[in-house]
Amino acid sequence: MRNVKLTIEYDGTDFHGWQRQPNERTVQGVLEEAIAQVLGHRVRLIGASRTDRGVHALGQVANFKTTSKLPLETMLKAFNALLPEDVVIREIEEVPLDFHARYGAKSKVYEYRLLSWPIRSPLERRFSWHVADSLDIEAMRECCRMLIGMHDFSSFMLSGSDTKNPIREMRRAEILLRPPHHITFVFEATGFLRGMVRSIVGTLVDVGRGKLNPMQFKEIMEARDRSRASITAPPQGLFLVEVKF
Amino acid sequence: MRNVKLTIEYDGTDFHGWQRQPNERTVQGVLEEAIAQVLGHRVRLIGASRTDRGVHALGQVANFKTTSKLPLETMLKAFNALLPEDVVIREIEEVPLDFHARYGAKSKVYEYRLLSWPIRSPLERRFSWHVADSLDIEAMRECCRMLIGMHDFSSFMLSGSDTKNPIREMRRAEILLRPPHHITFVFEATGFLRGMVRSIVGTLVDVGRGKLNPMQFKEIMEARDRSRASITAPPQGLFLVEVKF
Repeated sequence: MRNVKLTIEYDGTDFHGWQRQPNERTVQGVLEEAIAQVLGHRVRLIGASRTDRGVHALGQVANFKTTSKLPLETMLKAFNALLPEDVVIREIEEVPLDFHARYGAKSKVYEYRLLSWPIRSPLERRFSWHVADSLDIEAMRECCRMLIGMHDFSSFMLSGSDTKNPIREMRRAEILLRPPHHITFVFEATGFLRGMVRSIVGTLVDVGRGKLNPMQFKEIMEARDRSRASITAPPQGLFLVEVKF
Repeated sequence: MRNVKLTIEYDGTDFHGWQRQPNERTVQGVLEEAIAQVLGHRVRLIGASRTDRGVHALGQVANFKTTSKLPLETMLKAFNALLPEDVVIREIEEVPLDFHARYGAKSKVYEYRLLSWPIRSPLERRFSWHVADSLDIEAMRECCRMLIGMHDFSSFMLSGSDTKNPIREMRRAEILLRPPHHITFVFEATGFLRGMVRSIVGTLVDVGRGKLNPMQFKEIMEARDRSRASITAPPQGLFLVEVKF
């Protein structure tokens, strides 16, 4: 038996999220189908992160077990030849049998990309959130600093989370400015609750707009109550960038 | 009578190029329709560059004449509200009556984006050319330097050009490396023949691959014969970045 680790890039636009669902086009579903076709047996693909519908990935990680003796390079070429143009396997690696993409992940890095400018952008529309207002970067950065450390993130969890423990450790919460009008939020945490990045970004943007001040952001965080947070930022700005093991 | 100048961004993927054609979705056609709806009269939109099918623009320029007294800001909002999501007017300006977007252009800047890496990229697929080989940047730069100045560019002109004079002045021909695996070609010239950037890039890539050497590139350029050049690079990597007046 071999355990194979994949690093995967996808354009989430036309996927119904990562997780396999009957009658929906999902990343897991499309990958499992291509892998089964090459290996001649069905596999169960374990993904590090179950990204939501419309969310992209530059470095999703997944693993599967196989008895196939096919060389890794041959597998990679065959998988990628069968995969549709909106998903690709970037790297393939054999790992110890106890490697588990979901339980073994030490931290994950997400980026959220936003265009802050009065005019929308046709070229960026699938890969960013268009916010017509100008935003107070310093106020949002002050809130980012509050996110660092161990916290109960219940206020930023969407319904449908299957976790009982809403405590996560945020290791990085930064705002990068990309001229002329782009803002990238970078978050690294030991784990993320469902919809957590998009809920945080939606609330940060309300701080940036001046609808909330950093003190109110802190109160929302401490309330552990999703109904206190702002709207959830739309999925097309979100990218799973890296999973660390 | 007023003369109105527009700066336009579009995602060329789903357009049949700039120029209006019966029964085809074109950028000019879509814009003229939105403008007519707002102003209540048909306009003739003059574009600086007739970009081909699948080519993008960050800064296409066009102008039209109108008797409308609508303030420019109102026009801009109304046009953009009616335009589909893959095209937007970024700037609007009133210009002297003799301003002509096509004849008045002093130079144009195009970028061609390429991904040089064995694995294709789902997220970049609509906005770059995927070349699986690694490329010799220095050899391509040597050829770029040969392009600078006044030259007969017949070797890099696609059929269907309506020009009788194939001489153009190339002012800038540069290669920018964007880590990790992206290469951007930047060209500025007083004008471009039909398919010129894509023909040059296709031939430069053959130099990068080692199929041609810089001396052979020079011979191709001097041959003034399109059949000597390499394949035309595909349209999705090409962006009209700026038109200077």
